[in-house]
Formats: sequence, structure tokens, C-alpha cells
Amino acid sequence: MTTTAIQEYLINGSKAALLSPLDRGFAYGDGVFRTLIVQNGKAQHWQLHYAKLLHDCHVLGIVCPGSSVLLGDIERLFADNAQKAVAKIIVTRGEGDRGYSMPSLAQPTRVLIKSVFPNYPVEAFEHGVRLYLCQTRLGYQPKLAGIKHLNRLENVLARAEWNDPAIADGLMLDMEGNAVECVMSNIFARYGQTLVTPDLTRCGVAGVTRQRVIELASALGYRTEIRQLPLSELMDADEVTISNSLFGVWQVRALGEKSWQAQPLASQLRKLLQG
Amino acid sequence: MTTTAIQEYLINGSKAALLSPLDRGFAYGDGVFRTLIVQNGKAQHWQLHYAKLLHDCHVLGIVCPGSSVLLGDIERLFADNAQKAVAKIIVTRGEGDRGYSMPSLAQPTRVLIKSVFPNYPVEAFEHGVRLYLCQTRLGYQPKLAGIKHLNRLENVLARAEWNDPAIADGLMLDMEGNAVECVMSNIFARYGQTLVTPDLTRCGVAGVTRQRVIELASALGYRTEIRQLPLSELMDADEVTISNSLFGVWQVRALGEKSWQAQPLASQLRKLLQG
Repeated sequence: MTTTAIQEYLINGSKAALLSPLDRGFAYGDGVFRTLIVQNGKAQHWQLHYAKLLHDCHVLGIVCPGSSVLLGDIERLFADNAQKAVAKIIVTRGEGDRGYSMPSLAQPTRVLIKSVFPNYPVEAFEHGVRLYLCQTRLGYQPKLAGIKHLNRLENVLARAEWNDPAIADGLMLDMEGNAVECVMSNIFARYGQTLVTPDLTRCGVAGVTRQRVIELASALGYRTEIRQLPLSELMDADEVTISNSLFGVWQVRALGEKSWQAQPLASQLRKLLQG
Repeated sequence: MTTTAIQEYLINGSKAALLSPLDRGFAYGDGVFRTLIVQNGKAQHWQLHYAKLLHDCHVLGIVCPGSSVLLGDIERLFADNAQKAVAKIIVTRGEGDRGYSMPSLAQPTRVLIKSVFPNYPVEAFEHGVRLYLCQTRLGYQPKLAGIKHLNRLENVLARAEWNDPAIADGLMLDMEGNAVECVMSNIFARYGQTLVTPDLTRCGVAGVTRQRVIELASALGYRTEIRQLPLSELMDADEVTISNSLFGVWQVRALGEKSWQAQPLASQLRKLLQG
């Protein structure tokens, strides 16, 4: 599922620039990020991604760069990309003195990184994927829950637990054993006409595609519940799917020893997401 | 308590170098750090700091640079410093492709930052300090507890809760209301001849000076207990002190509405720490 990406970047709009180690993104992970698809110079679902970036910056008290500034960066770095490519936008609080105190006159740092689109196997879309159950659990931190901030060591430790390229992602539980999300995606469990996705007010990242799936599910006749989802209940689902902004939605066909039959929801949702 | 620090740095030993945004320290906070005093080109208590750096790197699976490499950096950057100055050493996993998977051939990044020694008020040493009780609480994450890693948003949010320069530090509780540590120091509570310091196996940073205080306390005739310390119990202490590698030990004279009389432990410990 991995690919050696050739990566290019802009820092505050400049190709020549590099980062100072005094940047608080480096010192403390004091910043947020987004990952999205750019094709033909166009950032997909930009309004949703920018709204999420604004929201996450606001929670941390970081001044978010304007939408037109970020779109200008994207236009510049992705000008010659007719193919799908991946844009990662990082916004940090900027440089500061030593110590945790927020700098009073911080100039936020914005970074745009271009990577090749992952070489996802066709069978992931056609026949679904296998998940690993991570031992690393998500700690509760209501003040940071939902936010896609730069403190991602839990994801790093969880991702290091498996090497098997046949595994697409790893399910992460909270400290009480509720399913929360996967290392790089959100998760949904279907029971009849009800779609359940974990509540993310104590831990986890509330992705833009998760939000879109919640909205689109009603168009398919599903009722959505956002609540705690114990692992045992997830295992009893009629169908499990995962979502992120790059692959859209995949059906989960196996999690550890448990397996699920092929079901149509993932492909139905993918069609709506592309629409 | 703050000072505008003139900061210089070396990245992988070079003054000219800057950081790539592909460095995982920046992308995910995937690294660790140390803060220590350097005087006359000599890093104070280097063996303890290096042992802690090695330990913290090991927990994250990062290859720690050799002691002589780091000492060479310190010699170079602090050559002309007769005064006390602050060294901050950051070690990250190095650069990687997009995504959480650890790079198979990562070259760790090492950064050394020199800052002026903080202009601590004399009265902090002579008459003790005031603490603020932070609302931001520390989440449990046993896999990262104790480690001085770069995921420090909890400290950033907690430090942003007060502006009053008369407040030296902020006490942080865990989710159950136990005292754990301060934003930039460890904490001790004395009851008669017993010194209690919070257990840090679920959250918090186990500082080098905390370790030294635990060892030195027995020389002063105290018995040390490392265990959970509910806030209500901390409030009933005969004496409260905080420690870090820059100021050593201060007595806490006030925490919110609670105040304590002057006591000799902090200055006794400071003398031993300097010895």
C-alpha cells in the first residue's frame, strides 16, 4: 500500500525556503494539517477542507492563512499535474522563543507538500480490505479530540505494529475498548439501516470524508448514529467501512479473525463521494 | 519569568543547515528533547541527560546519536560561553515519505539550540513561587508516559491559561484529579519525613532533576514514595517543591487560594543538586 513518493514543497509560498528549528510545529507539534487530492490544479472538496483547517486552527488559537493564499500555493506547486496528486497542508503557530508560552506576535508558518497519489491496489476497491487490531490505544484528551494536530505519536506507534502489506489500516481503540478510528481513516459500522460511527469528543480525528459520509448516508436511506462503539459491537456489524480523503471508502472484509461478506455500501458511498 | 532569548542552533552539526518539512519531528512530533545548562563549555549532569535521551529514543525506536557527537556539537556552539546558558537538544526520527509508516532507513536529525539563561527573579529562590492550577488535564498514554517527546500540545494549552508574570508554573492534574506535574517542572509534596512525588507511568514527563531529587532526598533523611497524589492530598502537604534542570528546586508558597509557610527543603535540595 506504500509508494516511494517524490515530494516537493513550498514553505510560506517559497520553493527555496526551509524551516527553522525554532518553529513551534517542530518544537511542540504546535500546528495542524490536512491531506487532500489535487487534480488538474484543483483541490478536491476545498471548502470542506478549508473549513476544517480554520476550525482546527481556531481551537489551538493559531491564525489560519486565508483560503486564497493556500489556493495560490496549490496552483503554483501543482500547475503541471493532470494526474491525481496528494497535497498536504501544514499550518503551525510559527517561530517562538524557548518555552511553552505562546509568542505574542507569532507569524504562522504554512507548508504545502506535493506527493504522488498512492498506488492503491484495485482489489481494495473491488473486494475490500483487511484491518489489523492495534495494541496502541488512544488516550483521552477532550481539548484536542477531533483536531488533526501535529501531535501524532500515537498513530506513529500504532502504524509500526504491522508490516504486512496485505493489511490496509489498523483499528485503534480507546482506553475502555471502544473502537474510535483507524490509524489513517475513520470507521463506520452498519446494522440494518443504521450507520454507526464513533463519537470523537474524547479522542480521534474527525475527518472531512467522515463528515461527508455522515451527510451522504441519508441519501442512501440510512439513519446515522454518532456514539460510543465497543469493539464487540463493531464485530457484530452487518458491514464495516473505513473512509479517508484519498481512497474515499473501502469495505472492511477482515479484522483479525473476523471476516465479513461482500456488501454494497462502500461502493455506493464512493459513487456519491465522487459526485 | 520570561526573557527574549537570542537563539543560535546547529542542525546535524551545521550552522548553515535548516530543516526539511519532511522531517518527522515536524510532521508528527516524532522525536524527543532535553533541556540542560551549559557553562564554560560543559554540559551539566551530562551522563544523566544522555542516559535519559538514550532511554527516550529507545522507547520510540529512534537511533540516538552518540554521546561524543552531541558533546562535540555543544563544544562548538557554546565555545565562548563563560556564563550559564541553556542547551536544548532535539533528536527526531529524521525525514520520511508521506504517511505514518516508519522509514526503513531513517537518518535521525539532531538539533542543538543555544538560548540565554532565563532571568529568574531572586525571590523565587529566596521566598518561593506561586503556582496556577491548570484546567487543561493530562491524558493517559502509558506508551508515551515519562518520555520527553515532541508531542507537547497539552503543555502549550496549559501554559496559555495564565499571563500573570508572578506565577512561576502551572500544576497539571490527570483526568481523575491527581496532581501529576507542572507545565515545565516536576512536583514533590513533603509530609513529615516522607517525600511524595507523582507516579508518571500513565502521563507526565520524568525529568532528570526529579530523579536526582529522589536520590538526594535520602541523604537529607527523607523516605520517598512514588505514587498517585490526589490534589486534595497535595494541598495538605507540609511543604511543596517543584524541580527542573534550569532552576533546580523552588518551594511552592501558593497554589490558587492555598498558601504555605517558608520551609527549608528547597534550598537544602538546591545545595545538594549543585554539589
